[in-house]
Amino acid sequence: MQSPEQLRILVEEYLGDLALTPELHGQAQSVRYALVGGKRVRAVICLATVEAAGADAEAGLPAAASLELVHAFSLVHDDLPALDNDAERRGRPSVWAQHGEAVAVLAGDALLAEAFRLALSYQVPQVGRELAQATLGMIGGQYLDITGSAPDEATLHRLKTGCLFAAAVGAALWVADVPEGEQVPWRAFGDELGLLFQIVDDILDGDGYVLVHGEDGARALADEAAARARERLADVPADTSTLGDIVAGLTTRTS
Amino acid sequence: MQSPEQLRILVEEYLGDLALTPELHGQAQSVRYALVGGKRVRAVICLATVEAAGADAEAGLPAAASLELVHAFSLVHDDLPALDNDAERRGRPSVWAQHGEAVAVLAGDALLAEAFRLALSYQVPQVGRELAQATLGMIGGQYLDITGSAPDEATLHRLKTGCLFAAAVGAALWVADVPEGEQVPWRAFGDELGLLFQIVDDILDGDGYVLVHGEDGARALADEAAARARERLADVPADTSTLGDIVAGLTTRTS
Repeated sequence: MQSPEQLRILVEEYLGDLALTPELHGQAQSVRYALVGGKRVRAVICLATVEAAGADAEAGLPAAASLELVHAFSLVHDDLPALDNDAERRGRPSVWAQHGEAVAVLAGDALLAEAFRLALSYQVPQVGRELAQATLGMIGGQYLDITGSAPDEATLHRLKTGCLFAAAVGAALWVADVPEGEQVPWRAFGDELGLLFQIVDDILDGDGYVLVHGEDGARALADEAAARARERLADVPADTSTLGDIVAGLTTRTS
Repeated sequence: MQSPEQLRILVEEYLGDLALTPELHGQAQSVRYALVGGKRVRAVICLATVEAAGADAEAGLPAAASLELVHAFSLVHDDLPALDNDAERRGRPSVWAQHGEAVAVLAGDALLAEAFRLALSYQVPQVGRELAQATLGMIGGQYLDITGSAPDEATLHRLKTGCLFAAAVGAALWVADVPEGEQVPWRAFGDELGLLFQIVDDILDGDGYVLVHGEDGARALADEAAARARERLADVPADTSTLGDIVAGLTTRTS
């Protein structure tokens, strides 16, 4: 079993060495720019799940990377002037601020298409299906957000954040060849991670859940989400110690 | 064997009835808007190839529709103010002009993700791989176009148009279960279609090839492309009469 930090380094190296499609020509530069930085949380969850389910973490690298590419795609498009109009991302100019709006639109498109190329490097289509479902949920969530039409906070976060965390676990199960009938407890665990991540994010940024529930209220909600994640994990019939470490890390993180 | 027009009607009905992912919520409206109209050339080529290769055209419908969704995705994003700034498309306001820029960015994203969902409804990943490869080529082509950095006209059109026509044939071969070793002559045919389509498009619009080669020169190039497509088709060991009709239709079309 590798530690979360060891898995993160694996992902970082894989992304750094990733061969992009040559037909992208100069567009590749903005795609690489968009892939710098980030905590790689989704990828690490994917690899830790692959290992816990009995396969080599390395076998999960294309799937794990595809999750990071979808995450990067969503940030690049969300940052656009027509959407959130964020000129900064991860302490640097956002893609549109650095490369222009036109190239940023295409960079997001290329990240999404490369993500599917990676997910489709497996012999089964299910990894790609997890990715498609999560991406569509994220887009629906972003629509509800920018139009202010979300029925409630939980629906919004389940779509905007939860879907891709759930897909990190779901994709890993297919990589590790876990039969569909045995996936239920794993997926129940995956369904808790997005909310935990989002609440802690809001505590660190002082927005979202903190504005609605206060800092103590948000912290209590995060602790409840972490407790639920640990309970779900206890139902998984495998050595899930690394996934337990990830839950602890998500709960106590300070950045 | 169904005629090109019968195949077009099949596609049109399939797209009209297409169940979009419920998680898209209100975003689905702009996705449907973007799917109205169009000649469905790529989808018809896909279905005709599926039939010529010995399978039911109906089996190719998800693949054929996925090509139309990728085509629509590219139009929606290319029309954006930051790219081609086209406020009109197919005689109606373009998606951004009708639904706003933010929703148009998301509509293109959703079309691409739905395209992969459809391509991944097959039991094998190869249909999705064809789609990913073509999409990345199109994005690279659009980058070369907007930055004026294409090495030559042929490279630009091969990427912007040719890739998706080639994928229409390629995807169909996987749907019809044509062994990889027997795909070569089919693919050689598919590689000729994009150029033929593009030259005739430029003749109808009075731009592109017409500006460089004059109208008579462009017409001669279109006739040569059509002749090459027919030659390639003659090498395909199957009843390719409908594909021959499609080549004739592409050559003589007036809209």
